[in-house]
Amino acid sequence: MGDLVKRIAVLGSTGSIGQQTLDVVRALPQQFRIVGLAAGKNIDLLAKQITEFKPEFISYSPADNQDKEVRTRLANIECEFLSLEDIACHPQVDIAVIATSGKAGLSPTLAAIKAGKNVALANKESLVMAGEVITGEAKLSGARILPIDSEHSAIWQCLNGEAQTPVRLILTASGGPFRDCSPAQLKTVTVEQALKHPSWQMGRKVTIDSATLMNKGLEVIEAHWLFNMPFANIRILIHPQSIIHSMVEFMDGSIKAQLSYPDMRLPIQYALSYPDRLLNPQLPRIDWSNVNSLTFEEPDLDKFPCLRLAIEAGKKGGTYPAVLCAADEIAVELFLSQRIKFIDIAGFTERTLEQHQAIAHPNIEEIVAADAWARKKVRQLVTGDSP
Amino acid sequence: MGDLVKRIAVLGSTGSIGQQTLDVVRALPQQFRIVGLAAGKNIDLLAKQITEFKPEFISYSPADNQDKEVRTRLANIECEFLSLEDIACHPQVDIAVIATSGKAGLSPTLAAIKAGKNVALANKESLVMAGEVITGEAKLSGARILPIDSEHSAIWQCLNGEAQTPVRLILTASGGPFRDCSPAQLKTVTVEQALKHPSWQMGRKVTIDSATLMNKGLEVIEAHWLFNMPFANIRILIHPQSIIHSMVEFMDGSIKAQLSYPDMRLPIQYALSYPDRLLNPQLPRIDWSNVNSLTFEEPDLDKFPCLRLAIEAGKKGGTYPAVLCAADEIAVELFLSQRIKFIDIAGFTERTLEQHQAIAHPNIEEIVAADAWARKKVRQLVTGDSP
Repeated sequence: MGDLVKRIAVLGSTGSIGQQTLDVVRALPQQFRIVGLAAGKNIDLLAKQITEFKPEFISYSPADNQDKEVRTRLANIECEFLSLEDIACHPQVDIAVIATSGKAGLSPTLAAIKAGKNVALANKESLVMAGEVITGEAKLSGARILPIDSEHSAIWQCLNGEAQTPVRLILTASGGPFRDCSPAQLKTVTVEQALKHPSWQMGRKVTIDSATLMNKGLEVIEAHWLFNMPFANIRILIHPQSIIHSMVEFMDGSIKAQLSYPDMRLPIQYALSYPDRLLNPQLPRIDWSNVNSLTFEEPDLDKFPCLRLAIEAGKKGGTYPAVLCAADEIAVELFLSQRIKFIDIAGFTERTLEQHQAIAHPNIEEIVAADAWARKKVRQLVTGDSP
Repeated sequence: MGDLVKRIAVLGSTGSIGQQTLDVVRALPQQFRIVGLAAGKNIDLLAKQITEFKPEFISYSPADNQDKEVRTRLANIECEFLSLEDIACHPQVDIAVIATSGKAGLSPTLAAIKAGKNVALANKESLVMAGEVITGEAKLSGARILPIDSEHSAIWQCLNGEAQTPVRLILTASGGPFRDCSPAQLKTVTVEQALKHPSWQMGRKVTIDSATLMNKGLEVIEAHWLFNMPFANIRILIHPQSIIHSMVEFMDGSIKAQLSYPDMRLPIQYALSYPDRLLNPQLPRIDWSNVNSLTFEEPDLDKFPCLRLAIEAGKKGGTYPAVLCAADEIAVELFLSQRIKFIDIAGFTERTLEQHQAIAHPNIEEIVAADAWARKKVRQLVTGDSP
């Protein structure tokens, strides 16, 4: 085990993954120290976090009209104010945790990777939108992408020590709250129902994406880039108990799986402690007297078209995954504000993808442009404005 | 992957594990070559194996009155006749597969280990009887013990690449054919019923040991020595589907498991190919549409006292595990020849252990003496002769 304390910056510290990252750091003060915090919305919580963890630099990106208030609130805090990118690349940061949600995670992820900084990545959009660019830059700089998602962490753990490329990645999925619903029932799903995930406590966007299985589709695209695995060799298995977080199949037919209760603090901690593992009494251990049965079934791509859309967009590549991501983000927003139905998330995303003129091997500017186009396009489709 | 063909000697080539080892070698002729074969009973099969694999040396240990016949049968075979020990240590052998059953495996295992030879170990008795001696010698010589048992192979695979000692080994057990029997039903178990294992095809002795759960107890003792794990940190979980072959729990609460259909060729091949994995089209791959549910339950130590006896003997150490092994071997023989009942296997083994005057940290001579004492003692107890 290394003797040195690892210096951590958390981008998106007030979100679900950010708060759980701070839980891990709080439990292991001998191993980790927070040197940077960044948040975009919750000023009260950020102020508390600053008081507790005393970071050396922070980033806060409020709406313009709140800027003065924030400066006042944080005035007596002796921190340097930096941009997300500058925090992610800062020489004093050993690991940048990118827990910023949505497109906002892309720029600091890329900046950190270019700077050769190890990135603990919870932000799905970075790799989905710009997997080719990011993994290419990581190869050049030697930066490591340490996955925080439970599925990718499971795969990463199972690959540990294996000399050869696996033949198949098996991503497990809880199936979400509507696994057993009929297509007719899906038509009347309410926001409240969609926000009740059977096994994971997560943010609103990812909870809805879990209900549509879009989340699993985005994870397939991430897995493709993280583990350099063809889409044909990535398989999804519905596993409602969320105990097996994913599996890897090797050329001899042997499969390794990683198991734990669904608790994001474990993959977060593993990304921070890798290659070591650390004792953290707050992390739950599986009580086998409570685990009677682990079940598996095939995903239903007809009932959950978002999963099919994501895999198709991933296979097509180019700017399609960025459009998928952006269209889904806006469609989920519109569902949460009760402007569209649950089943229309897939419908509007699909129509946006259909109308997209894709660019192969895009650069970041082209990816950002495709993202902007898709956001506008979804809103047009919803309001019925023809372009 | 190494370029060189690994040269393999198989001790016990006509038994279940021996034959499956030859299946693996047959499927992968570019990777493995048989240089030595040894068997103790089945001269016809051995002769066929010699014709097919053309080993450079063989060992055959028939009963004395068969010796002439064997010499005649094998007369035109251009092999060197060697002892088991000489084959196991031979400079031309890269890996000695010890698939000899019973006590006969101990001496060649020890000889190979002392000679610094890597041993692929299927023989349970070696580590159970003489774990302290064998692991001590392996430390001195640098020999590796490559486990072939599916449970230990699973643990070994899960430990791959992990820097730190795990906190718990979880050995899975099918539970055998009598998992759901009442204690009353166990009293009337026939030999035929006991020889029908629900998931594994194995030799007669190990099949009966699986029915009494003695086999799992012996594996606990082996795991203790193979992975230097205190008995308190080895746990058994009944898992009737025999898909998860064992698991390892790490200090952060993460668990890794190894999965495959129950087929001994996979752990055999892994022991031979380690650290590589090899593509073998004959090895089955899990079809998840056929794996609906994996279940787990606690073992019942009252219903299966052999498991309790084994763990107790392991914890006490000294010559107790050798006595356990020997007493069980004789008791199983007597059950198979219908001299004692199924439930009496545990009873006679327990009474033998109770009457044993153990020696702590025994040398090989003391272990062999304890073994001989136990064999005699069980027969005395069964026939009612007082010593």
